[in-house]
Amino acid sequence: MKRSERLVAITNYLLEHPRQLISLPFFAEQFGAAKSSISEDLDIADQMFQKQGIGKLVSVAGAAGGVKYIPMLSKENAELFIDQLCERLEDPDRLLPGGYLYMSDLLGDPETVRNIGKIFASAFADRDIDYVVTVATKGIPLAYATANVLNVPVIIVRRDPKVTEGSTVSINYVSGSSRKIQTMVLAKRSLPEGSNVCIIDDFMKAGGTVNGMKSLLSEFQANVNGIGVLAEAEDEEEERVVNDYISLIQIQDVDIKSRKIEVVKGNYFN
Amino acid sequence: MKRSERLVAITNYLLEHPRQLISLPFFAEQFGAAKSSISEDLDIADQMFQKQGIGKLVSVAGAAGGVKYIPMLSKENAELFIDQLCERLEDPDRLLPGGYLYMSDLLGDPETVRNIGKIFASAFADRDIDYVVTVATKGIPLAYATANVLNVPVIIVRRDPKVTEGSTVSINYVSGSSRKIQTMVLAKRSLPEGSNVCIIDDFMKAGGTVNGMKSLLSEFQANVNGIGVLAEAEDEEEERVVNDYISLIQIQDVDIKSRKIEVVKGNYFN
Repeated sequence: MKRSERLVAITNYLLEHPRQLISLPFFAEQFGAAKSSISEDLDIADQMFQKQGIGKLVSVAGAAGGVKYIPMLSKENAELFIDQLCERLEDPDRLLPGGYLYMSDLLGDPETVRNIGKIFASAFADRDIDYVVTVATKGIPLAYATANVLNVPVIIVRRDPKVTEGSTVSINYVSGSSRKIQTMVLAKRSLPEGSNVCIIDDFMKAGGTVNGMKSLLSEFQANVNGIGVLAEAEDEEEERVVNDYISLIQIQDVDIKSRKIEVVKGNYFN
Repeated sequence: MKRSERLVAITNYLLEHPRQLISLPFFAEQFGAAKSSISEDLDIADQMFQKQGIGKLVSVAGAAGGVKYIPMLSKENAELFIDQLCERLEDPDRLLPGGYLYMSDLLGDPETVRNIGKIFASAFADRDIDYVVTVATKGIPLAYATANVLNVPVIIVRRDPKVTEGSTVSINYVSGSSRKIQTMVLAKRSLPEGSNVCIIDDFMKAGGTVNGMKSLLSEFQANVNGIGVLAEAEDEEEERVVNDYISLIQIQDVDIKSRKIEVVKGNYFN
């Protein structure tokens, strides 16, 4: 196999196995090349990944060493993407009764979702995370997109127990906006005790839902090492009950009368 | 930029933009190379994609021409993967009360989910599909994984209307196993009339849910050009009401007393 061919195969393999330690002998055997040639290939790939702002290779020395591909969306690229997203959200056709914004089309677009996942994963790249946790249903695609890049499993908290989940742990919490008592459940066997997790959700106002997830996760002695929400908006009636989160978008003002929507970048870009 | 560097960048770009037509002049400008060099690069990439069984490049001739990267999981690779999945499902620790199998860990694993999406996308590669449709919640990750490869948006049918969806169309249907009347809703603006869709879900017994989705989709004059379910099982009380679907896995027998589970490859491999 020539270098040019090998580089296609190596690039593909790295992109498909983010954050996994791959040994040089594995590549050498796979592609019938000397370790020194593979090492040069990886240098070329690393340079290009960094140049394109899509990630980098990290070398791990020693007998059990190798390389890991760490995907990243540079803050510059992330900012460009979020600016466009804000603009799309300011379209008055998105206005729904009650001042809500229709976002399902954006959350249904695979490329948009992939980019959001890359931003969250870049934000949490240096934190200890074994699982991405979300609550059904709108956060699910964002959680998977993040987990794809972090290379960890997704755990889905539900509003109601399901027979296909086995025994569950449940908590009650007060929803910020509606002041109603709500329930959240998580299958007992889904999360080992003491895991490191990040929480991903699509939308946060006062933060009652995220807070509910935090207390449910504390039943599993989980460490919440990151909280990421796509969009946040102020709750007029209640103060925010969650700190230490990142948001990508802030819905600042929705004026139903004049059909004006103001959306700006979230606190991740401050 | 050298050929070796270009190949890293081109491979990455193609993998990130499946099924999108990319013109040679775009690459030529992006990487400062002659169109003839780019053309040679693409030949090398195509050969490697095919050799690795991960996809192929399709050329579109003419002034508006270019190349499209069509990801594929070869049937051979798909079969290997599904064989392993069947084995993992036969673990008696998965048994839940009522003879259900715990599968949330598999559906939470990003690599497993990506592979399932690739198989569905390969199965439907030649069909006309504008949207992937699923119903909340377990089918959602599989739908996105499929949509990622097909490069089309995802539409999520819900069990209950939500204020953030706007006006909805709803239908009632009879669930196969429980014989209960259930509801499904879909936001009116989510799906243009006359769209071509495929349905993806995690599990099918008699097929009441898939049938419900079909009748909901017929309210939108949608053409259902493919139905894919991860796992199917026979319903002892009711005949199957859906034909013309593909399944990747068949749960043949679950014996609670002897804790024996028998899982085989689905009809896609027949």
